[in-house]
Amino acid sequence: MAKHVYAFGGGTAEGDRTMRDTLGGKGANLAEMSRAGVPVPPGFTITTGTCLLYLEHGKTPDEVDQEMLTHVAKVEELTGQKFGDVENPLLLSVRSGAKFSMPGMMDTVLNLGLNDATVEGLAKRSDNPRFAYDSYRRFIQMFGDVVLDVPKHDFEELLGEIKAHKGFELDTQMTADDWKDVIEAFKKLVMDRLGKSFPEEALQQLRMARDAVFRSWDNPRANVYRRMNDIPRDLGTAVNVQAMVFGNLGDTSGTGVGFTRNPATGENHFYGEYLLNAQGEDVVAGVRTPQPIDHLNEVLPEVYQELRDITDRLEKHYKDVQDFEFTIQDKKLYMLQTRSGKRTGPAAVRIAVDMCEEGLIDKKTAVMRVHPNQLDQLLHPILDPTSTGSLELLTKGLPASPGAAVGKIVFTADHAVEEKEKGEAVILVRGETTPDDIHGMEAAKGILTSRGGMTSHAAVVARGMGAPCVAGAGEVNVDYRAKKITVKGKVLNEGEWISIDGSTGEVFAGEANTIDPDVESGHLAKFMVWVDEFRKIGVRANAETPRDAAQARKFGAEGIGLARTEHMFFEGDRIQHVQDMILSTEPAARQAALDKLLPEQRNDFYEVFKVMDGFPVIVRTLDPPLHEFLPKREELMVEVAEMKAKGEDVTEKQKLLDRVNELHEFNPMLGHRGCRLGITFPEITKMQAQAIFEAAVQCAKDGIKVIPEVMIPLVGNVKELADQKKIVVATAKEVFEKAGQEVHYMVGTMIEVPRGALTADEVAKEAEFFSFGTNDLTQTTFGFSRDDSGPFIKDYLAKGILEEDPFQVLDQAGVGQLVKMAVEKGRKTNPKLEVGICGEHGGEPKSVKFCANSGLNYVSCSPFRVPIARLAAAQAAIEAEG
Amino acid sequence: MAKHVYAFGGGTAEGDRTMRDTLGGKGANLAEMSRAGVPVPPGFTITTGTCLLYLEHGKTPDEVDQEMLTHVAKVEELTGQKFGDVENPLLLSVRSGAKFSMPGMMDTVLNLGLNDATVEGLAKRSDNPRFAYDSYRRFIQMFGDVVLDVPKHDFEELLGEIKAHKGFELDTQMTADDWKDVIEAFKKLVMDRLGKSFPEEALQQLRMARDAVFRSWDNPRANVYRRMNDIPRDLGTAVNVQAMVFGNLGDTSGTGVGFTRNPATGENHFYGEYLLNAQGEDVVAGVRTPQPIDHLNEVLPEVYQELRDITDRLEKHYKDVQDFEFTIQDKKLYMLQTRSGKRTGPAAVRIAVDMCEEGLIDKKTAVMRVHPNQLDQLLHPILDPTSTGSLELLTKGLPASPGAAVGKIVFTADHAVEEKEKGEAVILVRGETTPDDIHGMEAAKGILTSRGGMTSHAAVVARGMGAPCVAGAGEVNVDYRAKKITVKGKVLNEGEWISIDGSTGEVFAGEANTIDPDVESGHLAKFMVWVDEFRKIGVRANAETPRDAAQARKFGAEGIGLARTEHMFFEGDRIQHVQDMILSTEPAARQAALDKLLPEQRNDFYEVFKVMDGFPVIVRTLDPPLHEFLPKREELMVEVAEMKAKGEDVTEKQKLLDRVNELHEFNPMLGHRGCRLGITFPEITKMQAQAIFEAAVQCAKDGIKVIPEVMIPLVGNVKELADQKKIVVATAKEVFEKAGQEVHYMVGTMIEVPRGALTADEVAKEAEFFSFGTNDLTQTTFGFSRDDSGPFIKDYLAKGILEEDPFQVLDQAGVGQLVKMAVEKGRKTNPKLEVGICGEHGGEPKSVKFCANSGLNYVSCSPFRVPIARLAAAQAAIEAEG
Repeated sequence: MAKHVYAFGGGTAEGDRTMRDTLGGKGANLAEMSRAGVPVPPGFTITTGTCLLYLEHGKTPDEVDQEMLTHVAKVEELTGQKFGDVENPLLLSVRSGAKFSMPGMMDTVLNLGLNDATVEGLAKRSDNPRFAYDSYRRFIQMFGDVVLDVPKHDFEELLGEIKAHKGFELDTQMTADDWKDVIEAFKKLVMDRLGKSFPEEALQQLRMARDAVFRSWDNPRANVYRRMNDIPRDLGTAVNVQAMVFGNLGDTSGTGVGFTRNPATGENHFYGEYLLNAQGEDVVAGVRTPQPIDHLNEVLPEVYQELRDITDRLEKHYKDVQDFEFTIQDKKLYMLQTRSGKRTGPAAVRIAVDMCEEGLIDKKTAVMRVHPNQLDQLLHPILDPTSTGSLELLTKGLPASPGAAVGKIVFTADHAVEEKEKGEAVILVRGETTPDDIHGMEAAKGILTSRGGMTSHAAVVARGMGAPCVAGAGEVNVDYRAKKITVKGKVLNEGEWISIDGSTGEVFAGEANTIDPDVESGHLAKFMVWVDEFRKIGVRANAETPRDAAQARKFGAEGIGLARTEHMFFEGDRIQHVQDMILSTEPAARQAALDKLLPEQRNDFYEVFKVMDGFPVIVRTLDPPLHEFLPKREELMVEVAEMKAKGEDVTEKQKLLDRVNELHEFNPMLGHRGCRLGITFPEITKMQAQAIFEAAVQCAKDGIKVIPEVMIPLVGNVKELADQKKIVVATAKEVFEKAGQEVHYMVGTMIEVPRGALTADEVAKEAEFFSFGTNDLTQTTFGFSRDDSGPFIKDYLAKGILEEDPFQVLDQAGVGQLVKMAVEKGRKTNPKLEVGICGEHGGEPKSVKFCANSGLNYVSCSPFRVPIARLAAAQAAIEAEG
Repeated sequence: MAKHVYAFGGGTAEGDRTMRDTLGGKGANLAEMSRAGVPVPPGFTITTGTCLLYLEHGKTPDEVDQEMLTHVAKVEELTGQKFGDVENPLLLSVRSGAKFSMPGMMDTVLNLGLNDATVEGLAKRSDNPRFAYDSYRRFIQMFGDVVLDVPKHDFEELLGEIKAHKGFELDTQMTADDWKDVIEAFKKLVMDRLGKSFPEEALQQLRMARDAVFRSWDNPRANVYRRMNDIPRDLGTAVNVQAMVFGNLGDTSGTGVGFTRNPATGENHFYGEYLLNAQGEDVVAGVRTPQPIDHLNEVLPEVYQELRDITDRLEKHYKDVQDFEFTIQDKKLYMLQTRSGKRTGPAAVRIAVDMCEEGLIDKKTAVMRVHPNQLDQLLHPILDPTSTGSLELLTKGLPASPGAAVGKIVFTADHAVEEKEKGEAVILVRGETTPDDIHGMEAAKGILTSRGGMTSHAAVVARGMGAPCVAGAGEVNVDYRAKKITVKGKVLNEGEWISIDGSTGEVFAGEANTIDPDVESGHLAKFMVWVDEFRKIGVRANAETPRDAAQARKFGAEGIGLARTEHMFFEGDRIQHVQDMILSTEPAARQAALDKLLPEQRNDFYEVFKVMDGFPVIVRTLDPPLHEFLPKREELMVEVAEMKAKGEDVTEKQKLLDRVNELHEFNPMLGHRGCRLGITFPEITKMQAQAIFEAAVQCAKDGIKVIPEVMIPLVGNVKELADQKKIVVATAKEVFEKAGQEVHYMVGTMIEVPRGALTADEVAKEAEFFSFGTNDLTQTTFGFSRDDSGPFIKDYLAKGILEEDPFQVLDQAGVGQLVKMAVEKGRKTNPKLEVGICGEHGGEPKSVKFCANSGLNYVSCSPFRVPIARLAAAQAAIEAEG
C-alpha cells in the first residue's frame, strides 16, 4: 500500500529535499530542514498523489485518515500536547504546498483544533483569554471561508455590525467577552447558511480542512497562475499539517520573513522584516509597520544570531537564495518555511554570478539560474516607480514590446516625424499601425494601439526596432478626427503627455521619469560570456537598418537572419518610386521605377553589410502584397464618394482607386506575395539581387568581409525556388563579371507554408539553406490569421483549448512537427543544408530550446531578444547534456 | 547498343501494338497493321527514346543516321524506288507520333526527297509535270516552315505576289512553268533569310526533318496541349518515315478519313468522307467538298469493299472505334493510319455499352472506356450550335459550372428574383458574388462574373446548385450604376439577352436555343449500373436544399457528405434574424434571435432528411465568419460618408458600421469562423444541434429512416472538437429525453487545416468520422487564398511551376500527403473511423482515384458530379485490381 503521509520534526524526517514531486516544495523543505537540525514545528505532509486521488474520486481514501491519526500522535508526542485536549490542546496549521511555489493561490487554515472546550485550555495555558478567543473567532472565520464556503466578507460584515453595536472602532477595543459574542454570532451565521452547526470535533476539522486544501488546487485563480507559469495541472498539491506556534504571546514572541540576499538587486545582504507579539498574517495585512530585520539584533540578539546561522546554513545547503518565514514563541525560534527566493532579473543575474564566484555553485548552475525572459528587464528603460505613483493609471493593454516611453500624444506618423524634428518626445497612438506608419514609429519614443495582439503589426515592428509598445489597449478609444483619446470617460488631447510601459502594458496619464538600463553592467557582461561557453547553436538578429544591426551586434548577434527589404521601401521618397512601379502597367515604366530604387537599395545593403563585417547577412526578397504600398482602399472609396457628393472632379482619384481595387485581395496573407511576386515580376527580384551583389562587391573592394545569403520567401514548391534562384544566380554572375570581383554567397528559402515543409526533400535540392518563418507557418498550420485571431485566442486560452498563444510560443505538436519534418527531409537530400528560424519564436526561450533540440544551426530574433535567445540556447545545451 | 529504328511494311514489322512507349501510337499501329497484312506504305519508326536523346544533347546520335540508312534501303527494296534517284525517286513523309495522340500539335513534312533533279523523275513517272512542280513547291514551303523556321506566311505572301503579277487568282490557273517560277522565288527567299541555299541532298533533308519533328515535341502549343490532357513531357515523340503515296494521280486515286462508328453519337455506322484525285491536305483544307464515304462504293466498289473489310478487322483487332486515314493510288488502297477514335461523351457511353453487348469487350473494359469527365456532357443542357452560329461571341471566361443558360441581363440578386417571379429568364451578371447573392443565383438561369477563378464563390455555389456559370470573364466590364456591361467596346444594357455556356466559358450576345440532356437514356443508365458493380467506395453529395438533395439521389448519391447550414441562413427573412443575432451584444437578445431561427432550421433539416430517407446526412455547424451575413464594410463606409456630405443623420448607420468594423477581419479565411464561432458562441451550436435532433426525432416518428452525422468544421486541435461535441451530445440527450425517442447519430470533424491532419491521432480520439475539406486544406497547405490566387496561378501554370490548379485537382505531393497522414494517424487511435472528402476535389476524377487509393470510405461532391465520381471510383477499383 502506498504511503500517503510523511512525518517531520524533532531533528528528523521521513522525507527529504529530493521528494518535491511527492511532498511539494514546502513539505520537502520542511523535511530537509528538520533533518538538518533546523528547528521547525513538528508535523507531517500528505502527498500530492493523495490530492490527485481526491480530485479524481471526489474523496480522500479512508486509509489516509488512519495514517494521519498515527502521525497526529507523533506530533502530540513531540510537543507534549494533545489534539482536542481541553487542558493542553495541540493546535495545527494546514497549508498547501505544490511542487512549484504558487504564492497565495491556494488555501490555508490556522489554529485548527479549537472548539468551545479547547479554547478554554488555550486561554489558561497562554494566560491570555483575549488572545484565545480572538484566535478561536479567527479560526471559525478562516475555516468557514476556506472549508465551508461561507464568504469571508459575510464574517467581516457581521463583525463590523457587532463592533458598531458595541460602539467600537478598532479590534483592539474588543475584550475576551466581546470576542465570545462574536464567536456565537459566527457560529449562528454558519448554521443559517449551511443548516448544520460548525464542526466541533478536532479530527473532523482536520479531515475537512485537508480536503478543502486539495480542492483549492483546482480553483480558478490557481488555474490561471499555473497557465501563466507553465505549471502542469496534473502535479497536484501536498498538504502540510504542522503544530501551531504563536508569535503573539508577548514581547519575547514575534514573527518575520526574509531573504538571504536582496531579491530586488541581488546584493549579498541579509534582508527582511519582523514584528514582535504578532502572527504572520499581521505582517502581511500591513496593519502594523514591521521593523527591518537588523533591528532584531538589538531586542533579541541570541535569537537574531541563531536566525543568521540557520539561514546561512540553509543558503549553503540549498546553494540558492532562501526566502524564509519564522516565528519566535517565547524566545524560541521556529523556522516555518524556506524556499528558493523569487527575484528580479537584475538580481537573478547578480546572484548567479556572485554565488559562482563565491564557489557556491558552478558556471553551469549559474547559467541555469536565470530564466531567459528575466534578461528582458536588464535591456530596456523602465518607468521610475517613484514618479508613477502620482500619475493616473489609465488602462492596461498587452505588453507588446518591452521598455518604457514617455511623450506627447500624436495620431499620425507624419505628425510624429514633424514633432520629433522639433525636438519633441512623442508617443504614436493609433487604432492599429500599418507598414506606412513605419517612419512615425521610428520617430516616436513609443507606440500605443487600441487593437491588435502580441503579433500585430505594431507589436512585431516595435519589437524589431526595440521601441516600447503597448498594443490592443481596447479601452482606449481613438478619435482621429477630434484628435483625442477617451479612456473610460477620461479625455486626453493631442499634445498631452502619456507614459507607457511596454513590459507591463500599463498606460499612465502624464509625464513619468524613466530609468535607463545598465546593459554594460559587469555582472551581465560576465554572465553572457559564461552563457556563450555552453551555447551550441548560433544566434542572429532580424534587422534591416544599420542602427538595428549595430544594436544586434552589441547584444551579441552573430549575423543577420532576416533583413526585410520591404521595410526599406518606406523610407524617404522611395515609396513614390514603389508606387510608380506598382501603378505602371507597362514593363518599361516599371523598369524605370525600379532603376530609381536600385541605388537606394544598394546603399542600404552596403551599410548593413558594413556593420555586419565578417558575419552572414540573410536578405529576403520582396515579401508583402503590393497593395500594402498603396493608399488604403476603404479610405480611397470614402474620399471618392465624398468628392463626388461635393461635385468635385474624381478622375485621377478614381484611376488610383481602380488600380487599388484591381490589387485588392480578400485574404492578402494568402495572396499575391512572397516569391509569387518575384515570379510574376521577375524584374523586381533582379533589381534586388543586383543591389545585393553590387553592394557586396563594393564591400569586398573596401576590405569588408561580406557573406550575403539571398532568401526567397513563401516557397511551397521547389519550382518556385528554382525560378527565382535562376534570376539571382544569373544576376550575381553578371555583377561579378562586370566588377571583376567575386563574392561567395548562398541562395535559400523560407519555409513558412506547410507545403514547403511537406516537400522539403525536393525544396532542399535547390536550397542551400532553410529559414523557418514560424509566424506565417503558424498562421497556415492553424489557419489562424495573426491579425484577426486575438479575440478567439483569448477565449481559447480561457477555456483551456490552447495552453499558450501559438504566436508567442512555438506549437510543438503541430508547427513543430512540420519543422522537424522539414529538417529531416531537407538534410536527407542536402546534408549540408543550413537551417535556422527567423519567426518571432526565435527569441522565445521555450521555442529556442525546441529549435536547439531539433537540430537547427541558429535562431534569429529581434535585436533586443538576442541575449535572451543566447541564454535559452545555452540552457538547452546544458539540459541536453543531462 | 540500343535499337533506334524499327521497320514496317510488306506484311511484316519489327514492332507491334504493345510498343507504344517506344514507337508512339502511330508507329505501333503502323507496325501492328503491317503485321496484320493491312496494306500500309512501307517505312520505319525512329523511337521516342531517340527524341529524348536529341532534346537532352541538342543533336541526334550519329549511329542513328547509320541505322536509318539501312532502313531507307529496305523501303527502297519494297517500293522498287530509290531515295534521291533521278529516274524513279522514292519520296518520303516524316511525321510525329507520340504515345498519346496530340493532333495537329507537332510537325509533319511531306514529299521529302524532292530537289531540282528528282522532281524531273516525278514529272516523268506521274506523267504530270504540273503535279510534280506543285509538289516540289509545297515541299519547299513545308520544309522551309517546319525545318528552316522561315514562316509559312512569308511563302504564302510571296506566292500571292507572283500570282498577282501573273494576273491569276486561283492556284488552279498556275501551269508547271508558273510553279517553276515559284520554286525559284521560294529558294531565293530561303537563301535571303538563312544565307544558305535550300538543302538539295535527300539524306540531309531527311536528317533535318527528323530533328525538326523531335524539336516540335517541345513547342509551346504542344506543351499547353499536354498540360490540358495530362500527358507527361518526358515521353518524347517518335518519328514515322514512310514512302509517299499519292491520291492525286487521277480519278482512280483519292484519299479519305473515317471512323468505324459515329464519333458524335456513338451509332454503329461506318462514317467518313473522301475526295478523288486529291491529297490529304485537300480534305483538311476544305477547298473542295468531300463526299460521304458510302459514295465510294459507287465509284470504286472493290476499293470500298476492301476498306470496309480492313476497318472492320481493325476495329475487332483493336476492340475499339478506329479513326483511320487512307489513300488510293491508282486503285491500290493504302492505310496511312489507324487509331482509337476520339468521341464525345454520349458517344463514348454508347460505344462502350454497344461493344460490350456485341461481345467485343467485357464490362470492365467498357467501364474503363469512358473518361469520367465525359459524363458531364450527358448531364447538362447545351447550347444548340445551329442557333449560336448567328450570334456574336463576346468573350470567353472560365467554364466554372457546366451547362448552358440563356436569359436577360440583371445585375442584382433581388432584381433576379423579381424578374423570375414575373416569369422572365435572367442571367445574373456580377463582378463577383457573395453569400448574400444566393437567392439571386437560385432565381437566375445562369451566372456570369468578371472576377474570380474556378473556385470563386460564384463557381463553387453554382456547381453546387447545378446552375451554369461562366466566371472570371475579365473582358466583361460591369457598371452597376449605369446598369450595363461593356465587352471590348460593345455595350449591353440590363434586360438585353445573353447566352452562356458554362462548359466552355463562352458568352454570346443574344438569345440562343438550348438542348436538354437525356439523362435517363438507356445507354447511360445501363452504363452506370455496370459502374457501380466495380465501385468500392461510397459517393455522397454536397447539398442542403431538398431540391439539390433530390437531384443528388437521382444521380445516385448514397447520402449527403456536406450540408452547409449557413446557406440556409440567407433564405427569406432569416437573414434578418441572423443579423439580429450578430448585432446583439447581450446574450439574451442573441438567444431571442436564435429562438426565431430554430424552427426554420429544424424544418430545413426535416425536409432534407426526408429526401435522404435511409441514407446518412452530414450536417456541418455554422462555418463562415459572421461579417458575411452583414452589409459590406466598404459600402457602408461610402454610404455614411455620402450621407454626412449631404448633412444627413448617420446615427443608426454609424452604429451598424461600428459593429461591422468590429467584426472586420484582414484575412477572414483565417479568422473567427468554423468551430471558433461555436466555441465563442456556444448557443449557436446548441441551436443547430437542437434543430438537427428535433428534426431527426420527428423523422423517426414519421417512419423516415434518418442517419444524422454532426460535423464540426475547421478543427485543428482535439480540444476544439471536444468542446463542441460536448454541446452536441448534451443537446441530443435533452431532445431525445423530451421526445421519448432516440436516434443513432455520429459526431465528427472536418480536417481542413494542416494542424488537424498533423494531430489526427489526437483528434480521432473524439471524432467518429473525418471529412477532408480539401478546399480549405489546399488554401492553408499552399498558403493560397482561393479567392485571390487566380492571377498568379495562371502565371504558375504558364511557367510550368504548377502542373495543375491545385483547387481543381488535388495536390497529391502536399495536400495528399496530409490526407494520407491523417487517415493513417486517425485510424491508429480509432480503427472504426469513417473517412470521406467533401471538398470540391471529391468530384474530380484524378482526385477521386487518389481518395479511393488512400483508403477513404466515400467521396462527396456537388450533385451534378456524382455520376462522374461514381465512374472515377469504379475505375480506381479496376485499376487497383491491376
